[in-house]
Amino acid sequence: MSRFEVTALGEAMLRLSVPPGERLETMTRLDVHLGGAELNVCAALASLGRRCAWLSRLPEGPLGRFVLRAARAAGVATPGVSLAAGARLGAYYVEFAAPPRATEVIYDRAGSAFTGLSAALVDWEPLLDTRALHLTGITLALGEGPFSAAREAARRAKAQGVLVSLDLNYRRKLWSPQEAARRLADVLPFVDLLVCARADARTVFGLGDAPETVLGALHDLCPAENIVLTCAQDGAVARLAGELVHAPASAAAVLDRIGAGDAFSAGLLDGWLDGDLRAGLARGAALSALALAQRGDLLVTSREEMNAVVERSPSTVNR
Amino acid sequence: MSRFEVTALGEAMLRLSVPPGERLETMTRLDVHLGGAELNVCAALASLGRRCAWLSRLPEGPLGRFVLRAARAAGVATPGVSLAAGARLGAYYVEFAAPPRATEVIYDRAGSAFTGLSAALVDWEPLLDTRALHLTGITLALGEGPFSAAREAARRAKAQGVLVSLDLNYRRKLWSPQEAARRLADVLPFVDLLVCARADARTVFGLGDAPETVLGALHDLCPAENIVLTCAQDGAVARLAGELVHAPASAAAVLDRIGAGDAFSAGLLDGWLDGDLRAGLARGAALSALALAQRGDLLVTSREEMNAVVERSPSTVNR
Amino acid sequence: MSRFEVTALGEAMLRLSVPPGERLETMTRLDVHLGGAELNVCAALASLGRRCAWLSRLPEGPLGRFVLRAARAAGVATPGVSLAAGARLGAYYVEFAAPPRATEVIYDRAGSAFTGLSAALVDWEPLLDTRALHLTGITLALGEGPFSAAREAARRAKAQGVLVSLDLNYRRKLWSPQEAARRLADVLPFVDLLVCARADARTVFGLGDAPETVLGALHDLCPAENIVLTCAQDGAVARLAGELVHAPASAAAVLDRIGAGDAFSAGLLDGWLDGDLRAGLARGAALSALALAQRGDLLVTSREEMNAVVERSPSTVNR
Amino acid sequence: MSRFEVTALGEAMLRLSVPPGERLETMTRLDVHLGGAELNVCAALASLGRRCAWLSRLPEGPLGRFVLRAARAAGVATPGVSLAAGARLGAYYVEFAAPPRATEVIYDRAGSAFTGLSAALVDWEPLLDTRALHLTGITLALGEGPFSAAREAARRAKAQGVLVSLDLNYRRKLWSPQEAARRLADVLPFVDLLVCARADARTVFGLGDAPETVLGALHDLCPAENIVLTCAQDGAVARLAGELVHAPASAAAVLDRIGAGDAFSAGLLDGWLDGDLRAGLARGAALSALALAQRGDLLVTSREEMNAVVERSPSTVNR
Amino acid sequence: MSRFEVTALGEAMLRLSVPPGERLETMTRLDVHLGGAELNVCAALASLGRRCAWLSRLPEGPLGRFVLRAARAAGVATPGVSLAAGARLGAYYVEFAAPPRATEVIYDRAGSAFTGLSAALVDWEPLLDTRALHLTGITLALGEGPFSAAREAARRAKAQGVLVSLDLNYRRKLWSPQEAARRLADVLPFVDLLVCARADARTVFGLGDAPETVLGALHDLCPAENIVLTCAQDGAVARLAGELVHAPASAAAVLDRIGAGDAFSAGLLDGWLDGDLRAGLARGAALSALALAQRGDLLVTSREEMNAVVERSPSTVNR
Amino acid sequence: MSRFEVTALGEAMLRLSVPPGERLETMTRLDVHLGGAELNVCAALASLGRRCAWLSRLPEGPLGRFVLRAARAAGVATPGVSLAAGARLGAYYVEFAAPPRATEVIYDRAGSAFTGLSAALVDWEPLLDTRALHLTGITLALGEGPFSAAREAARRAKAQGVLVSLDLNYRRKLWSPQEAARRLADVLPFVDLLVCARADARTVFGLGDAPETVLGALHDLCPAENIVLTCAQDGAVARLAGELVHAPASAAAVLDRIGAGDAFSAGLLDGWLDGDLRAGLARGAALSALALAQRGDLLVTSREEMNAVVERSPSTVNR
Repeated sequence: MSRFEVTALGEAMLRLSVPPGERLETMTRLDVHLGGAELNVCAALASLGRRCAWLSRLPEGPLGRFVLRAARAAGVATPGVSLAAGARLGAYYVEFAAPPRATEVIYDRAGSAFTGLSAALVDWEPLLDTRALHLTGITLALGEGPFSAAREAARRAKAQGVLVSLDLNYRRKLWSPQEAARRLADVLPFVDLLVCARADARTVFGLGDAPETVLGALHDLCPAENIVLTCAQDGAVARLAGELVHAPASAAAVLDRIGAGDAFSAGLLDGWLDGDLRAGLARGAALSALALAQRGDLLVTSREEMNAVVERSPSTVNR
Repeated sequence: MSRFEVTALGEAMLRLSVPPGERLETMTRLDVHLGGAELNVCAALASLGRRCAWLSRLPEGPLGRFVLRAARAAGVATPGVSLAAGARLGAYYVEFAAPPRATEVIYDRAGSAFTGLSAALVDWEPLLDTRALHLTGITLALGEGPFSAAREAARRAKAQGVLVSLDLNYRRKLWSPQEAARRLADVLPFVDLLVCARADARTVFGLGDAPETVLGALHDLCPAENIVLTCAQDGAVARLAGELVHAPASAAAVLDRIGAGDAFSAGLLDGWLDGDLRAGLARGAALSALALAQRGDLLVTSREEMNAVVERSPSTVNR
Repeated sequence: MSRFEVTALGEAMLRLSVPPGERLETMTRLDVHLGGAELNVCAALASLGRRCAWLSRLPEGPLGRFVLRAARAAGVATPGVSLAAGARLGAYYVEFAAPPRATEVIYDRAGSAFTGLSAALVDWEPLLDTRALHLTGITLALGEGPFSAAREAARRAKAQGVLVSLDLNYRRKLWSPQEAARRLADVLPFVDLLVCARADARTVFGLGDAPETVLGALHDLCPAENIVLTCAQDGAVARLAGELVHAPASAAAVLDRIGAGDAFSAGLLDGWLDGDLRAGLARGAALSALALAQRGDLLVTSREEMNAVVERSPSTVNR
Repeated sequence: MSRFEVTALGEAMLRLSVPPGERLETMTRLDVHLGGAELNVCAALASLGRRCAWLSRLPEGPLGRFVLRAARAAGVATPGVSLAAGARLGAYYVEFAAPPRATEVIYDRAGSAFTGLSAALVDWEPLLDTRALHLTGITLALGEGPFSAAREAARRAKAQGVLVSLDLNYRRKLWSPQEAARRLADVLPFVDLLVCARADARTVFGLGDAPETVLGALHDLCPAENIVLTCAQDGAVARLAGELVHAPASAAAVLDRIGAGDAFSAGLLDGWLDGDLRAGLARGAALSALALAQRGDLLVTSREEMNAVVERSPSTVNR
Repeated sequence: MSRFEVTALGEAMLRLSVPPGERLETMTRLDVHLGGAELNVCAALASLGRRCAWLSRLPEGPLGRFVLRAARAAGVATPGVSLAAGARLGAYYVEFAAPPRATEVIYDRAGSAFTGLSAALVDWEPLLDTRALHLTGITLALGEGPFSAAREAARRAKAQGVLVSLDLNYRRKLWSPQEAARRLADVLPFVDLLVCARADARTVFGLGDAPETVLGALHDLCPAENIVLTCAQDGAVARLAGELVHAPASAAAVLDRIGAGDAFSAGLLDGWLDGDLRAGLARGAALSALALAQRGDLLVTSREEMNAVVERSPSTVNR
Repeated sequence: MSRFEVTALGEAMLRLSVPPGERLETMTRLDVHLGGAELNVCAALASLGRRCAWLSRLPEGPLGRFVLRAARAAGVATPGVSLAAGARLGAYYVEFAAPPRATEVIYDRAGSAFTGLSAALVDWEPLLDTRALHLTGITLALGEGPFSAAREAARRAKAQGVLVSLDLNYRRKLWSPQEAARRLADVLPFVDLLVCARADARTVFGLGDAPETVLGALHDLCPAENIVLTCAQDGAVARLAGELVHAPASAAAVLDRIGAGDAFSAGLLDGWLDGDLRAGLARGAALSALALAQRGDLLVTSREEMNAVVERSPSTVNR
């Protein structure tokens, strides 16, 4: 038995936010959370009882310990985190807003400890002693070091028979579509399970057709056996071992959008670990709904709670 | 003139809650309120200017004084509260939630001071120097002592010509339908005014037909002159002195559901005190709406405010 | 070039509020904001980069400095504010509520420092070194001194070619319709740009017909070249240089209604400063929507943000 | 048996404060308490289990209900409070400070509902159905109406054999020493138990000698059988039925000075009710110490707690 | 190498507190922490980088997960925690106070999940795969089940050569000195490292002489090679392998006394793990000082921080 | 008359802090303040009524506007602030601590908008239309650009007869003593008023003798007519126009040390503006004491408050 069920490599950032109706311009207090796409996936899976590990690079001192503490609290192991003396912790400011304003995110992540990561600093043993390795496109965007570390992780995982899961997660504030397409081309060949938002498929690869067509085109770019196209409120369309599957979204009150996509990936991986990616689509929808109705990036839930949401949802339909 | 207009006997508990979007699992602060079905009814009536008294059994010391202080603040007299040295105060945790989660309540009331109550510890004088005595099924569920105290209270009240009001208030986490039916059978013969939720009629007595039929069947179980069947958003249907009356619910934003049913009972009793139970149905709907839009179990309102809501609502219809 | 683009004369008050679901009766903490119709207009304009000044009369000491500090923070100059030793700062309590309750305002402004203002205490130089002077009907209601100061300000401004803008802003808790009509009759002859809520036109002047008819009747009372009739969710109808213009409202989540009307006036004046009152109507609708979705009376925004809302709105239509 | 043990007549005000280190100039939130010298005395006595009533005049509506609620919560009956429609509630702002700044109080009590009180509005029955009536010099300072009400109360109480207790409590922000001396001269003849701070004796009556001499001079002004001179950290010196008694202060951490003098009066009255004014001096010192170490004007304590402090203190010494 | 360096068995409770100056009687919010003597020791050691595990019995559901989450956040492994459906989590209320009041603790731990623990429910494998096992007298006081589990743990550990550490930790609210002495007599024979407060030695065993004499008498009761007598501000006196060692306390500002004794035990064990119990005494004093100056039971610190305090302290003196 | 009395050039940072007793490792909320040595000086002077301007370089968007708003609120003009698109705002984390821990500061200011400042970006007109220009050594440490801007500012000011004030303010986390000495050597020739902490004189220049000797040695390095050596609790020793002056510190409760040195400089400059540097020393001591007893970097005070502290202090003594 492998030590972990899912491992991931990625950055975590301090999230500093004001509530809806307040402005950053007049802030006197900030709510503190921790966020990071790959850590979010691990935390959601750990809430379900999965054995997960997350690797990263953090500043030495109280802020690095803040991150480790939060990861452990969520039940995520942190066996190979490397520490950088004198480095900074990336942060992002969030102004949660009500219409006509949209919630605004201001990144302050340049020059963080994580951007100093490289393949040489990765502790491969814990990272690859797993059934699945989860990566996101964000890491590829954070500089040559993180990109090379992620690429090498994917290559090694593929070679060892570890499932490589990638959530494309394009962020326009971090890189251009051209850069994204170029670096992704180096990693996609190793990917076994690809998650891509419909809007990202259009932006990065220019794929703007019907979901079924987009899935086919993505498969040309990435030989993954399973590809999931997420379509926001319209749910997801997936190509699972060649078969087309539609999955509706679960209804939710939206208190905090950040992390909902990561919760979806967690549900998908949870299904995969049980050998049932169709169940994974429904679990992803359920976890995503739970994430929307909860404050903070790291999902706090339980298998019972997820199942209760899944059971209330209309079942996935295979056309 | 009797000293009080309405008295009640029941437990009060500390309510510890986190706001919507927060989880008990990650709590760092808890909002503190006081709650208890019978006290809630008294507090709502006192807000309208009614003379009310509430009897209970509380731990000696700061926590017992916390309860007394809150009852007095609400304008409720506490003439015969007995104190138990070394006893605990029951509590319940609330995780207010947004869909797809439902608000969750965790009871921590076992072994509370109130469960040590018995008929012998009740101060009958203030309890029965009243026009109406209000009880709920919850007290019957809390053990042999509280049950016997409530039964004796109902018996004595009936004998002295005091109106006996009972809100059935079935709580599945406290007892089984069978136990409930058995103990209720000992108390219902003394009841003059019965309030029962439609769902409880089904669960406890297996009465699942049309409201009119359920009212008839309840009347077979309980010879009360007035019986009110509450139907959540569908309002209430009542059998008042043999006549069938329908009352719509009042619209409200739902911030805190807890205590809304007790507010309904308070409105009903307020109408009864004025000799107008039909007005009572409308007042109950209005107080219930006010309770839903307010944080905390104990309703804070005024007669002016209640009347303003009543006047905006469509009037009750007699078919 | 004039020193300021817009100046205003008016009172500012401490706003003390409890959040929705809480009651003033049980308050343990109050949120503190600053509010005042004329200051609100200046603050919104300053957020857009306009040079504004606000004149008032304030108590000496920490509370007066609190007001000056908040005005400056908002970017509003306070060149001629007069200070009154031993005077009080007006305040108002707000209980933000959810249905079936309406948000309630309790004024506590009697005897404030501002009511001691008189024409003799006004520093005319900064007030009139401007392109536009903004007044509201509230100042006329606050006593003989403030009324005479506002009337004299309007008279002098008119004489010097400064645009006189007046938001009628009738407050029934401050004066009767008869008093309002009487004092307004002394000021309206000097007004160049009049804003009036449809409900106020009915209450104060008995004008209850179709908007177009009301605009005509208002023009008979006030020879202003531009008159805007605001119709709440139905937007606004204006008579601009003799032409009739309709402007829709912008959609918004309502977190805090207070100050939304002042934000509208600010947008209107911003358009006037650019020589485009039609644009002003759209900007007013946008700022009003932004104000509704934000806590506090003083709007915090930017020209970019306003423009983003304007562009999403359907354009104004001239019939 | 009289209905109450102690009654009092006085004003209550909203207390709005910022914590040490914060400034009113930059406040964003205010802590809310209720305060009023006479109410404070009643609340402390009620904490000890005494039957107390407090009469006042309050604004109708939520703010008046806030006061009544707080008084009842403290266990103080409010049988004859009169309500004034449209009146305001007095308030005071407190900036708790650390050295080199002193805590600053800003009164905002002019024109409050209480200043509209007059002898004609007082409900004499509950006020005089008591063993002792407590008054303070503050009420005499609040205008002709309150002064006449307090004088009439003292006169009637004296006539009915009710003990008249007066805490001189000079406040220089309310009146001049000359006015104080003049109005006090009308009330002192009715006083049975006088409490006066040494600094006030000097300011109002020009009595600046040794405590024993001051006590003698006070006795010339006021024929009370018992007179207590409080000397801050130096404790108190009293002339009890002609005998001189010294009482040390109790040590305390000072978190909130406001209300400590009223706590002293409460302890004194508690001793008097037990027929032991010497014990009252010690209890006063203990309650005063408890008040200093607690936030808020209204003391929350219990007889057990008071006794525990008394027992640790050195006993009073008769020289 | 053993899996853990230190393991412990004990209860954890929810700690609900109000800050200094506030009273439980008037609470509106409670600060939430987690506490438990044995968990506190593990958390402090984990902060220093030690591998620790804590075993307990917890309620299923959010409150149990709250505890697990907090333990993991502190870096403490929870391999064999057993869950009890429907059980309650013990709690305690703390009213932090300033003189003349003392901080008051109200236990509400009766009937908690942990009291249902028995030797049969303990997972011995992780508990004994360690260099040292830490127990406290509290567990012995919590009922027959916890007592038998602790005794069996001590017996097995002794048999396997695992160091048995016991902090006597007498709590008079939990049991009588007689009961304590009786149950301790069953466990002390297995103890290798005993920590006992001087006041407890007097209360439980009647040992009231000079520290050196007490240490000798304790050695007669318990054949531990190392015995430490803690003397509050006077530091500690220890008998280490027959030799007498004195260790001063470290100076600290006292913000929160709870957990300071556990921090001392942690420092002692940290020294023992390094084979240097004298260093352990100094580290215990340092951690204790750090705990006093920090809110919460679970110490948050680092080895660097502890060393900085140790170095500033006068070194331990051997007489 | 010059437009400003004092101008300054420097960086401002977001200050994010937890209160004493809390740890950054477990933070859930951060208190937000704004800080920056030069801005602090201007804010304190503006509180006294002085006309001040502060120039800086800030990120565009909400965080830059947050800074401008705070500066304006403090009464400081911001005429020539340049904005950098996409740049970050420097920040620092503060863990206020109680002994045995010291308050810890973690800088996160690398790569801030201000580090992109250069002489070419400075708007010289407002900066030099002043009587005094204030600089600190911190700006010299922040990179070649800020250093060159500060040097050029000093050169130009000197040339135009503007007083050049420099607070040496050595920060070891920003640069080495050698670098500091080297860059200071380029600026000190322009300085007219030098403030230097005794510890910094030792660290940077190796000057460790008696204050008088250090002052002499500093004068050799810097031909300023007035040099002040600050000695923490021992007050300050100054060489004013060749004469030696000693000034004691003012006593204060220490709530927040940050900014106290800047408050001292402000008092000194306030004295200089009045032509009385001896008064300035006393005012500096008073403002410093006020700053220690207040939360936040930017001092909130008034001339009356400062004078009250000055008057209570023993006067400065000339030996």
